[in-house]
Amino acid sequence: MASMNTIGALVLAAGKGTRMHSDSPKVLQQLLGEPMLRYVYTALDPIFGEGIWTVIGHGADQVQKAFADEERRFVLQEEQLGTGHAVQVAWADIERAGVHRVLVVNGDTPLLPQPRLMAFMKEVVDADADIGFMTLTLADPSSFGRVVRHNGDVAAIVEAKDFDENLHGQEPNEINAGIYLLKVPTIAPLLTMLRNTNRSGEYYITDLVELAVARRMRVRGVDCGQDPHLLGINTPAELVRSESLLRTNLVLEWLEQGVMIHAPETVRIGPMVALEPGAVLHGPCELYGRSEVRRGAEVHSHTWLRDTVVSAGAHIRHFSHLEDAVVGEGCVVGPYARLRPGAVMEEGARVGNFVEMKKSVLGRNSKANHFTYLGDAQVGQGVNIGAGTITCNYDGVNKHKTVIADGAFIGSNTALVAPVTVGAHSLVGAGSVITKDVPDNTLAVARGVQKNLPRKR
Amino acid sequence: MASMNTIGALVLAAGKGTRMHSDSPKVLQQLLGEPMLRYVYTALDPIFGEGIWTVIGHGADQVQKAFADEERRFVLQEEQLGTGHAVQVAWADIERAGVHRVLVVNGDTPLLPQPRLMAFMKEVVDADADIGFMTLTLADPSSFGRVVRHNGDVAAIVEAKDFDENLHGQEPNEINAGIYLLKVPTIAPLLTMLRNTNRSGEYYITDLVELAVARRMRVRGVDCGQDPHLLGINTPAELVRSESLLRTNLVLEWLEQGVMIHAPETVRIGPMVALEPGAVLHGPCELYGRSEVRRGAEVHSHTWLRDTVVSAGAHIRHFSHLEDAVVGEGCVVGPYARLRPGAVMEEGARVGNFVEMKKSVLGRNSKANHFTYLGDAQVGQGVNIGAGTITCNYDGVNKHKTVIADGAFIGSNTALVAPVTVGAHSLVGAGSVITKDVPDNTLAVARGVQKNLPRKR
Amino acid sequence: MASMNTIGALVLAAGKGTRMHSDSPKVLQQLLGEPMLRYVYTALDPIFGEGIWTVIGHGADQVQKAFADEERRFVLQEEQLGTGHAVQVAWADIERAGVHRVLVVNGDTPLLPQPRLMAFMKEVVDADADIGFMTLTLADPSSFGRVVRHNGDVAAIVEAKDFDENLHGQEPNEINAGIYLLKVPTIAPLLTMLRNTNRSGEYYITDLVELAVARRMRVRGVDCGQDPHLLGINTPAELVRSESLLRTNLVLEWLEQGVMIHAPETVRIGPMVALEPGAVLHGPCELYGRSEVRRGAEVHSHTWLRDTVVSAGAHIRHFSHLEDAVVGEGCVVGPYARLRPGAVMEEGARVGNFVEMKKSVLGRNSKANHFTYLGDAQVGQGVNIGAGTITCNYDGVNKHKTVIADGAFIGSNTALVAPVTVGAHSLVGAGSVITKDVPDNTLAVARGVQKNLPRKR
Repeated sequence: MASMNTIGALVLAAGKGTRMHSDSPKVLQQLLGEPMLRYVYTALDPIFGEGIWTVIGHGADQVQKAFADEERRFVLQEEQLGTGHAVQVAWADIERAGVHRVLVVNGDTPLLPQPRLMAFMKEVVDADADIGFMTLTLADPSSFGRVVRHNGDVAAIVEAKDFDENLHGQEPNEINAGIYLLKVPTIAPLLTMLRNTNRSGEYYITDLVELAVARRMRVRGVDCGQDPHLLGINTPAELVRSESLLRTNLVLEWLEQGVMIHAPETVRIGPMVALEPGAVLHGPCELYGRSEVRRGAEVHSHTWLRDTVVSAGAHIRHFSHLEDAVVGEGCVVGPYARLRPGAVMEEGARVGNFVEMKKSVLGRNSKANHFTYLGDAQVGQGVNIGAGTITCNYDGVNKHKTVIADGAFIGSNTALVAPVTVGAHSLVGAGSVITKDVPDNTLAVARGVQKNLPRKR
Repeated sequence: MASMNTIGALVLAAGKGTRMHSDSPKVLQQLLGEPMLRYVYTALDPIFGEGIWTVIGHGADQVQKAFADEERRFVLQEEQLGTGHAVQVAWADIERAGVHRVLVVNGDTPLLPQPRLMAFMKEVVDADADIGFMTLTLADPSSFGRVVRHNGDVAAIVEAKDFDENLHGQEPNEINAGIYLLKVPTIAPLLTMLRNTNRSGEYYITDLVELAVARRMRVRGVDCGQDPHLLGINTPAELVRSESLLRTNLVLEWLEQGVMIHAPETVRIGPMVALEPGAVLHGPCELYGRSEVRRGAEVHSHTWLRDTVVSAGAHIRHFSHLEDAVVGEGCVVGPYARLRPGAVMEEGARVGNFVEMKKSVLGRNSKANHFTYLGDAQVGQGVNIGAGTITCNYDGVNKHKTVIADGAFIGSNTALVAPVTVGAHSLVGAGSVITKDVPDNTLAVARGVQKNLPRKR
Repeated sequence: MASMNTIGALVLAAGKGTRMHSDSPKVLQQLLGEPMLRYVYTALDPIFGEGIWTVIGHGADQVQKAFADEERRFVLQEEQLGTGHAVQVAWADIERAGVHRVLVVNGDTPLLPQPRLMAFMKEVVDADADIGFMTLTLADPSSFGRVVRHNGDVAAIVEAKDFDENLHGQEPNEINAGIYLLKVPTIAPLLTMLRNTNRSGEYYITDLVELAVARRMRVRGVDCGQDPHLLGINTPAELVRSESLLRTNLVLEWLEQGVMIHAPETVRIGPMVALEPGAVLHGPCELYGRSEVRRGAEVHSHTWLRDTVVSAGAHIRHFSHLEDAVVGEGCVVGPYARLRPGAVMEEGARVGNFVEMKKSVLGRNSKANHFTYLGDAQVGQGVNIGAGTITCNYDGVNKHKTVIADGAFIGSNTALVAPVTVGAHSLVGAGSVITKDVPDNTLAVARGVQKNLPRKR
């Protein structure tokens, strides 16, 4: 089941993250438009495949919803009684799956480097340790649990506030990074021995180390130097620093791969975005989600895209905002265009300034160049939609469809009261309110007659 | 009167600032949306309270207007005859107020650090000096007045251009920072002895030092090291450097306090803005004036706010521009929304793309989602305003009010010719021009009848 | 003919630049809105005047079109058979022009510093060398041709892949920068001896050096240290790095000259833009092409300008997009205004939010404050154009003109079906569709009559 046969992974993602000052659970805090937990999965998925369990608690439903499209094994920790308790809660599932070792990581470590994980696991497995954990050596170990060693061997992990030089010897700079590899059969009995008789009243996974040492089990503290990527994120300031690092790396990678990124320091590209060499971006701009930009397409400055495909040769002009949209080859969008979810532009179509499109298709070479709202509309090919055209798709209760057939010409300032159809090659006069269908090849007008009177003043 | 009993403050703010190339007086040049002088007051107000006098001259009316909402003691220097002359002009007021010592600072020093000021004053007062001034030691003292000392005691301040090694000894790197503490009774007679027989033909406050030395008064030059914050701003380049420093500090402070600031290097927050921990900002964005963003509210990228309150849980989406507006709890604004002064959105209201609101109230849960101009409008609760609705509030001479009562539905492309009222739960048909009041529970339509004719081509 | 009498310049601009992944020829790749080749010309024009030849090949028509407004001497290299071949192709023209020496530079070196060029040419001419070339000493000479010297004299240039320590001695860090000064009469015979019997099958200009050495001609390798500005740009990453350097320099220069540039790190100013001291810019903003901003004019943040004149005291407010437009003194534009080519605003005119203007004149003190499309319109002085006004300038085949005379008032939501004229001081009622001319001093209305009916629900 798990791709790395006998090893599974357990992600601790139940915390609230009080210092984030947010109503969202901590692991849903976003970096470059993706939740922290996404990054952890990205590191773990290729190693563990389906063998990943996630303990959720605070905002559990929000977390599940955020990953609803994926098959994830969530375990609910009803009360958050500490990291040790979180492991206990998931333990039965893990044992049942026949996993021999389990990697325990926190869901708030989005920078977790995969090669480091692999090397860590190899070292622990090679040593056949019952429990292994990563350690870091920090200039300022401040609030972290200190690793106490005797003759190089791990003796205990002592919480910062419990540290006592008389008891533990000279205070070390080596700290526990909070990433463990546990041998399931031998650690199982220790799990039940965890006690919450500490200042926080919580069950700590950390205590497994001391329990194991006391039983002369094999304990391995793997020194990972000063790698800052292993540390969890607890505050907005920490999140933003990590995000900044990620951003720079992603932009430089795309640049090296042949994407032209002007003003790269102001460009933000999410980790799941796909760009082709020869795509051109101009900062400041943002591309998030599963957006794609193809060769020869150009995303201009002051733009925001999410989950949007920009086909070859298309231009997304300034001040445009696209979400869950498809822009066909050679299309021109904006400036000031907003494509909302379900907007589809076929090849060569144009959407101009102050135009909003939602759940609508604009056919080949059709144009809506100014001040237009296309909602729930099906527009054919070669259609010209005049400035100020509005599809009145909402009657206060339901949404209705507007159909505009090939070659139609909609005059400016027209209201199309849906459900309504304008036939092929028909023309709607400017300023009309169209409430009845217009057959093919028809001229439809609905407006008052002009009267010129002397102006009284 | 003055909060620090016998000490007052005098701000020199009469200069033009020629090198700024601006028609505004120098002290109104802005950093992060606030005039320089604002920063000086922010440093002085807690120390001196009402005991602050400001000498104004160039653009005096502009300066007074900029601080019209505050009780400020302005003294007009009709002709700008130098810093000494500025002090002379204000002196009578200061003496009359019974102030024993007066701090003299320039209005172009927005970075003035309050602790430094306090320490300086303490040292001068403790030494019971008749005149104290701050000095700096610069690698390149260039155009500044040099401090000449004999055996550690200040002997004189010599203007750069008047410095002569034969006369003054080896040229020092210690310069006069231009911030003085004067003992009013003993300095008063010296003030009248200032002469303008120098190259500029101006009365210099600097000359007080030499006059005091000559009379064996107590003179104290307080060495403030290399602190660049004490220097005045004379050019756009200097202003922009200071602004950059301020910006970085403000953003980092808010970040440390628990505000989530994505892309912090592109976020600009004015010094009077108030943010709550748990507020979320996405750069590039700008918040100026007395804007407030509450917990759980989110200000998205590419936005500009001034004097605007964003209540808890509200979202200001991309490309929005808000000035002097109030956004209620849970409201959604934009993208591409412009709230002008007097726009008030009640809880749960929504203003969508390409919507402009001015001096208008949008009631609870009411929506104006697209292409709408609400000017001088009072909109009730649960109202739906269709795309392309325009309140015609201006007849070329006066502005008139539009009232839309609870539960009304305004069809798209509607013009409401004010003064006009649409009653509760009434419906206005799309494309109507409403010139007469619509009673409650009424369907109002004003449009031409649709005709379909064969299209001739 | 050439301004530096007997010296001409030859720019090699025929390359495709495969590593750019672009359909445009390499020399048209842009930095700050201008093609690379523009920068090379800017460096060469003051030295060589008309004595500049440019060899074009890939995308030759695109290159010619980009510089169609200038008298440039293009030479077409039909097949791209190498740099030596490019020189051969242009040689006849150069000889015919009576040029005695010719500088050969690549069109992909936009940072080429003019003083360096001058110094190089002086040294080669003073030495009366037959062939001179610039060299660089790089820590990582990687793919560049290595300069082999014997006793300080250049012996050969060896391509990186052909370098052999046994053959050429210890590998040097001195490389050929690819910029040559050739003496026309003596180099001419060597040109015909170039062979393409190398791995690329191309004729290299580089080989001229070895041919000259073999004939004991005077060869001069001018050491230019580590100057990175001499190197060609081959990849998006290299282009972006150069652009970044240029950007910083340009912004700092303008700042020093008295332009107030807030948030300067986010401001992009093209090399041909002209700013006056006392102009004010707020980043993020972009100014390209031949844009000009005069004293006291202010360009606010989130704006994009190209080839646009902003006159004294005018304000370009946030989120505005201007191209090939003229903004008169004291005008206010935006926020969210789009001025397209041919938009002209006379003194004191105002264009407000969500307004688009194209090939139109807006007269003195006239206003189009909201939601308006002015296309092919001639608007007089003191005109007020209501919200939602649209000039229907396009009938599906042709564009037509709208004329609005002085003092007219156009009510909101009006469609003006061109060709049409609204006379002086006339008033068009809100919601009208104007299809016939309106004489002076006339009230024109064209709309349905309002009916109020009980609302059925």
